[in-house]
Amino acid sequence: MKCMADLCVIPFKETVSVADEIAQCHRILKTFDITIQLHGYGTNLYGEWDEVFAAIKACHEQLHDSGIVRISSTIKVGTRTDKDQTINDKIESVERRLK
Amino acid sequence: MKCMADLCVIPFKETVSVADEIAQCHRILKTFDITIQLHGYGTNLYGEWDEVFAAIKACHEQLHDSGIVRISSTIKVGTRTDKDQTINDKIESVERRLK
Amino acid sequence: MKCMADLCVIPFKETVSVADEIAQCHRILKTFDITIQLHGYGTNLYGEWDEVFAAIKACHEQLHDSGIVRISSTIKVGTRTDKDQTINDKIESVERRLK
Amino acid sequence: MKCMADLCVIPFKETVSVADEIAQCHRILKTFDITIQLHGYGTNLYGEWDEVFAAIKACHEQLHDSGIVRISSTIKVGTRTDKDQTINDKIESVERRLK
Repeated sequence: MKCMADLCVIPFKETVSVADEIAQCHRILKTFDITIQLHGYGTNLYGEWDEVFAAIKACHEQLHDSGIVRISSTIKVGTRTDKDQTINDKIESVERRLK
Repeated sequence: MKCMADLCVIPFKETVSVADEIAQCHRILKTFDITIQLHGYGTNLYGEWDEVFAAIKACHEQLHDSGIVRISSTIKVGTRTDKDQTINDKIESVERRLK
Repeated sequence: MKCMADLCVIPFKETVSVADEIAQCHRILKTFDITIQLHGYGTNLYGEWDEVFAAIKACHEQLHDSGIVRISSTIKVGTRTDKDQTINDKIESVERRLK
Repeated sequence: MKCMADLCVIPFKETVSVADEIAQCHRILKTFDITIQLHGYGTNLYGEWDEVFAAIKACHEQLHDSGIVRISSTIKVGTRTDKDQTINDKIESVERRLK
């Protein structure tokens, strides 16, 4: 089962900036067999369900290993049986209508 | 790794009511070794990470098997290394402060 | 326009526990003309759209006034034109099917 | 109070594709004094809090006016008092660390 997901990880830490942890998550996500696309409030993930959620779990595990005590993530995940639709397919299907 | 999660499943279907599908998800979730608690806009899930996400995947798979073509879920998931905190622990820690 | 919403506020702060801030948000939410119901990973809100979102804005503003520098909230919001459905209506419509 | 938000609108409708409604939302969002950026699972919004949430409300109202009976949106919203950070600032602060 393929899925499109969107991940926003929030590490609880002493400083306000979390860009280091987001960058660390990106390096982790890139080691999985999924397509990723960073945006301003999270990251789009596309691939097999098990691979996508293994990648998300690895982000939590490795941030904890780095010393982050608490993490809260917001995830959206979509699945469909009628067709296979990539991240760019979804964006283009909207942009085509906006022309 | 234990986690607290919150799941809101939206099946794309012809009728406006989705209570049948939410009830179906509850029956699916109850077959897993996790604690669940329904609320007005989703369901709290608590247990081992792998079991929680196996339960969420089963909801998508079995709704698709029932004929639902497309599903979009919103999930929140929290992990922490300092202590184990159940659904009721979290609610009580806030309610204690409100007294 | 009535709406059902779900709010999960995450303050960025030095300590891992955010129960004080969640309790503060509850006291703020209670000053608005909305119905609220705490659960394990957020709070259900029900009322007029403008009142619900004024309440959410007040949470951000008053937490910032208390010294919290950064806040990230996850909100779900549902509206429907066919009927008026309270928090308990939604829960009962699922529980009825589970009996 | 400036905010960064992320909006994912799901209209409940008979057909599986919702790209028409997403495109309609984009046309609505563009009439507000906010910056918007479409991605694969939603849209980033940046601007004054009141303007951002007026834009989101207009999406619900105008989709209902178009005949959509039920809508569920997932919104993330972030505010911070230490600095003003645009959508591109946030992406660049992560990408700089990935080089």
